[in-house]
Amino acid sequence: MIYEQFYQIIYKRRDVRGQFSGEPIEPDALERILSAANAAPSVGMSQPWDFILVEDPEIRKKFAAHVEEERVAFGKLLPSDRLATFEKIKIEGILESSLGIVVTYDPARGAPAVLGRNTIDDAGLYSVCLAIENLWLAATCENLGVGWVSFYKEQFLSDLVELPDQVRPIAWLCVGPVTHLEDTPDLERLGWQKRRSLDDRVFANRYGVKDQLRNWQ
Amino acid sequence: MIYEQFYQIIYKRRDVRGQFSGEPIEPDALERILSAANAAPSVGMSQPWDFILVEDPEIRKKFAAHVEEERVAFGKLLPSDRLATFEKIKIEGILESSLGIVVTYDPARGAPAVLGRNTIDDAGLYSVCLAIENLWLAATCENLGVGWVSFYKEQFLSDLVELPDQVRPIAWLCVGPVTHLEDTPDLERLGWQKRRSLDDRVFANRYGVKDQLRNWQ
Repeated sequence: MIYEQFYQIIYKRRDVRGQFSGEPIEPDALERILSAANAAPSVGMSQPWDFILVEDPEIRKKFAAHVEEERVAFGKLLPSDRLATFEKIKIEGILESSLGIVVTYDPARGAPAVLGRNTIDDAGLYSVCLAIENLWLAATCENLGVGWVSFYKEQFLSDLVELPDQVRPIAWLCVGPVTHLEDTPDLERLGWQKRRSLDDRVFANRYGVKDQLRNWQ
Repeated sequence: MIYEQFYQIIYKRRDVRGQFSGEPIEPDALERILSAANAAPSVGMSQPWDFILVEDPEIRKKFAAHVEEERVAFGKLLPSDRLATFEKIKIEGILESSLGIVVTYDPARGAPAVLGRNTIDDAGLYSVCLAIENLWLAATCENLGVGWVSFYKEQFLSDLVELPDQVRPIAWLCVGPVTHLEDTPDLERLGWQKRRSLDDRVFANRYGVKDQLRNWQ
């Protein structure tokens, strides 16, 4: 059945920090994962995304140094027990991964009248995230790891990759071959957070009304 | 090869408005698509999403009436040639689809210190969108259609499904069996927008610098 293979990818996908091998990405695989991203749904079919492939080691080193500062800053906000857990967690693989991919959002794409963005301006942002998930799953399919780094100030990254004023960075993705994908997400494995089951996240007709029509197990 | 089947789903997926058959959704399939959504990556593993399954015809009728008002309001913003194109486009299948799924975002999940949301508050929103794309692709796998309706005011939908103050509605998804999925997106088929190729959307190291390392075709 086709869906079994699809669901294998859904559950195999991990947010990778420590398992990058640094080997090069096969160019055809890179084109396939970017094409999958470009095939994502978008509000008014605006496809408001761009992809900046960052190979330049100087840019990556500057970004890694900035992220390290933000890692330290976050640690200072934590109570001591949480800090001890946090310090065991590797938060990025910027230099060890084969490629950085900065995914950006351009609200001017398709403007002024983007069909479906009139009442909800953030719908454009949402579209970019759908493209990122397509990329992420496709990469998993290609035996590549992806790690979304979000410990950065947007202005720093905008300046670093020279974004025009209206274009917003949405993600820095670390991408590349991996030694393996962990069975359990790092944050669960290292005691930061447990995954929630679906049971109490599904409601019937109104928020908070437990869905009793189905037997959620 | 496993990836051929995965990519078939990526390219088969459509944003459905007019092809819902109204037949019931098989409960196991519904559980699989919601479980796929719940397996999406999220910032700090916060899983800040909830799913409200809206079957109640009264709620759906009220929402459809609101969306119709917003459709008319959007039309008034368009020049006459674009309006003529827009009026040919069906923008929602709220009553014809088998189920509405309201996907929401709760910023309090995992707070106050969500790992990776310290510098970018919207990272929580982004997580919800990743879950939506998982749901959408899984539904495609299950031969179900999904249509994301965004012609609504957030406060209207919040009131309609009784969201707590801090919880934000991200999407109303029309979900259900379909007669078929179109080969070409409605907005392209009906002349609103053409899809863009990847060629000029990929840059090397900095925005606007054409990637010349690869032969994008």
